[in-house]
Order: sequence, then structure tokens, then C-alpha cells
Amino acid sequence: MPGDLRIFAIPGLPEATAGLDVGAAIAAAAVRAALAIEDGDVVVVAQKFVSKAEGAVAALAEVEPSALARAWAGRFGKDAAVVEIVLRQAARLVRMDRGVIIAETRHGLICANAGVDTSNAPAGFVTLLPDDPDRSAERARQAMRAAVGREVAVIVSDTFGRPWREGAINVAIGVAGLRPLLDYRGDADQFGRRLQTTVIAIADEIASAAELVMGKARRTPAAIVRGAGAWIGEGAASALIRPAASDLFR
Amino acid sequence: MPGDLRIFAIPGLPEATAGLDVGAAIAAAAVRAALAIEDGDVVVVAQKFVSKAEGAVAALAEVEPSALARAWAGRFGKDAAVVEIVLRQAARLVRMDRGVIIAETRHGLICANAGVDTSNAPAGFVTLLPDDPDRSAERARQAMRAAVGREVAVIVSDTFGRPWREGAINVAIGVAGLRPLLDYRGDADQFGRRLQTTVIAIADEIASAAELVMGKARRTPAAIVRGAGAWIGEGAASALIRPAASDLFR
Repeated sequence: MPGDLRIFAIPGLPEATAGLDVGAAIAAAAVRAALAIEDGDVVVVAQKFVSKAEGAVAALAEVEPSALARAWAGRFGKDAAVVEIVLRQAARLVRMDRGVIIAETRHGLICANAGVDTSNAPAGFVTLLPDDPDRSAERARQAMRAAVGREVAVIVSDTFGRPWREGAINVAIGVAGLRPLLDYRGDADQFGRRLQTTVIAIADEIASAAELVMGKARRTPAAIVRGAGAWIGEGAASALIRPAASDLFR
Repeated sequence: MPGDLRIFAIPGLPEATAGLDVGAAIAAAAVRAALAIEDGDVVVVAQKFVSKAEGAVAALAEVEPSALARAWAGRFGKDAAVVEIVLRQAARLVRMDRGVIIAETRHGLICANAGVDTSNAPAGFVTLLPDDPDRSAERARQAMRAAVGREVAVIVSDTFGRPWREGAINVAIGVAGLRPLLDYRGDADQFGRRLQTTVIAIADEIASAAELVMGKARRTPAAIVRGAGAWIGEGAASALIRPAASDLFR
């Protein structure tokens, strides 16, 4: 009973610091853990690990908070420098209410604090989103191919809240080597009629599945998802961002 | 290498018709497929299978479309009877725009067409959401315990779209025997500071993970997720619905 889908946490990754080769580090950790990477595996790596490896952090001491950042921070007991960085990382403020900032980033991602995070960042620093998460994923994919000679897909995952539902889930903010969307439209249902609207965000579902073994505090920022090889192909996480023109919730 | 998490599709389930015992049917199919259910397994079953088993369907011939339903159907090429059933299943219309109806159901779920679906429904009928998906999950859990003597959790899953992102993902609309939310707040991060806001919707992530092996058209409306036993406990999917007072997107 091997399971149709198997997910392995990759233990033993080092703390990521600027300049770390994400793909090589994951490949080396997998080898040390006797986890043989196979063709068709999807490797999921946490955004924060990628960001630290890319030096996508900001020093609080280096920003001068604006009046808006200071007012907001004072009102809700926040750090004005952190708020300032959030505002600078935002391309559009979607909600700024009750101490919460939901922003659209320059990537088109809509998330809390424009992806700026103080958790698991060194004192005095915050982490930012990678500059181009699809490129981060592609770079890791190529490094893993070079290291172990296998064709894998890579997802850079992040933990996003969402309207209407409690709790955050992991989604794919970077994708390489995977078709992120599965389109059933036009397929027949069991009664021979066409399925109407169903496009499934496979990459987001894989990111969520991997989160179940990665965990926030357990320091396992990468996992292997095996059995999703059917979706290997070309693709990018940018395809998961709904264009403004077709979004009823802008 | 058994994997930290394993997901098995359960093949061979019958077409669900009103009166089918969902838990007994899943247990029997698992036995036939030599998939031994274990204590701590999370069994995920698709909403549509549950709805059909519970007779949660509506006959198009039995509704008299309102003027609103007829106008909307005429404008966007829809079936007025289907639109009428959608309106009747809605407790609140969240968006009604460009041919799309996003509604809050009486359960508090916010989804397309108030959960009314024509796909995979017999001609002349649509499927509705189960009356009480948490109760459906609990009933299936008890039936499986009776059938195989194992303590499992059950998730009733459905495929929901979401704002801002392309593609739908599976979420948990019914839960029994599982703590649906994992709360990291108060835990220390790797630098000894408190994690700020992270509550993870474990049940939704498990539902998404299971979808990867279930598929829409493959007629495998149930799966076993093994390795999520840490979250076994008491809980209900109603905990996943954000109260209006704390929702920035009402």
C-alpha cells in the first residue's frame, strides 16, 4: 500500500542565509536523509526559506516611517518601521482595518502585510517576498537537476489567509516545471454532460498538502510530494493570479 | 520510505443514491480494495456523494422560477429553474454579477451558486449541499467505526473558488473527529519570539490534499489520508467559518 500520493518532509536543512543555493541545499539534505528524489517529484519549499536565501529581508533600522505608518502603528500597537516596510511592499492596499493590512504586492499576490513577516526573522529584520518567486522556483529546479539528475517540479509556498474562512492555508506563489491549473471544462461528467466551470488550482492544493508535513515551527521548510507527476509540465504561479477584469472581488 | 503523509484513493464506490450509508459504503469499498483502514486515518468524502446519499437533490420540474430568476437566466443563458433553486438555497447574495452568483448558504458557507450543482447530477435534477455537513461527517465516522472497528476522522469536502486567485480548491464543509484549526499563536519561533498570527486550516489543507487523488471525473469520491493523526480530536467544520464581526470581507 504505497499510497497514491506520498509526502515526505525533508529534514536537516540548514538555516537559510543570503547566498544559499536553495536547490542544492534541498538536494543535499534529501541525500543525507536517504530520501531519493525521483523524476516527477514536486519539491515544495517555504517562501521564508527562499527569501532568506535570496537576501529578501529588510532592516528595520534603515527605514524612516511615514506619518501614515506612525499613526497606524500607534493606534494598534505595531512597530512603525514594520508598518512602513509593509506599505512600501504594497502596490495596492486592499483592506486597512482593525490593525490588519491586506495588500496586493507587485507580483499581484493579495495577502496580509504584503508578505512582510517578522516571525522567524532575525532581530531587527523582517522577511520580504522573493523578488520573482517563479524565477526562484526555476532556479531551484535547475539546481536540483544538476545535483541529482532528476526532473522535478518546484513550488515556492506561502501561508495566506483568505476571506470568509478561519485559518490560513498554503498556496503556491512560485512554480516551475508544473502545470498549476487543471482544466476540466469541456470534459464529460458521468452522465455525459459537460462539466461546467471546474478549474482546479493543483499547485495550491499541492502546497497545502505539503504544509501538513512541513509545519511552521518544526523547521522543515521543504517537502517532497510524490505521485503528482501527471501535472509535470510548463507553468508558472503567475497563472494562479486572477486578472482584475475577471475578478468579482476587486 | 513510507512517506510522512500518504493518500489513497478508494476505488469501487457505487453510484450514490438516496439512502446509501456513506460510511458503510466507504468501509466496504476499502475492504474490497484491500485498503485496511487504520486508527487515525482521515477519510475525505466528496460533498456530491454525500448529498446524493442523503437525497439532497432538487427536481427542476418542481420549481416555479421567480421573475428575478427568469430575468437572470435570460440575460446569461442559464436555466431559470436552476437559478431559482440557487436563490432559494442562498441566505445572502454576496455577488450577482456577469452571470455568476456567489452566495452565503444557511450553513455560512460562501460559494458559487450556493452549492447548487448540475454536474454529475441526473438529468432534470441538481444537487444541493447536505443539510448539516458536520452531522453527515459524524454519521459516516460512526458507520465506519461500526464496520471496521477503527477510530477515523471524516471530512466532507467541496470544491470552492475564491477571490483573487484562479482555480478552485477543495475545502472542508463537514468535519468529525478532527481538530480543523491548528493554532500556533503563542508558540515561539526559532528566535524565541512569539509567532504572531498563524492559525492553519488543517481540515481545508487535508481536503485539498485528498482532491489530488480523487479528481472530478474519475469517480473516486473518497480517499484516505494517513499520517494526519496528530489532528484527531473533537471539532466541526463550522469552526472554519469566520464570524461576520471579524471578517474584513463581508
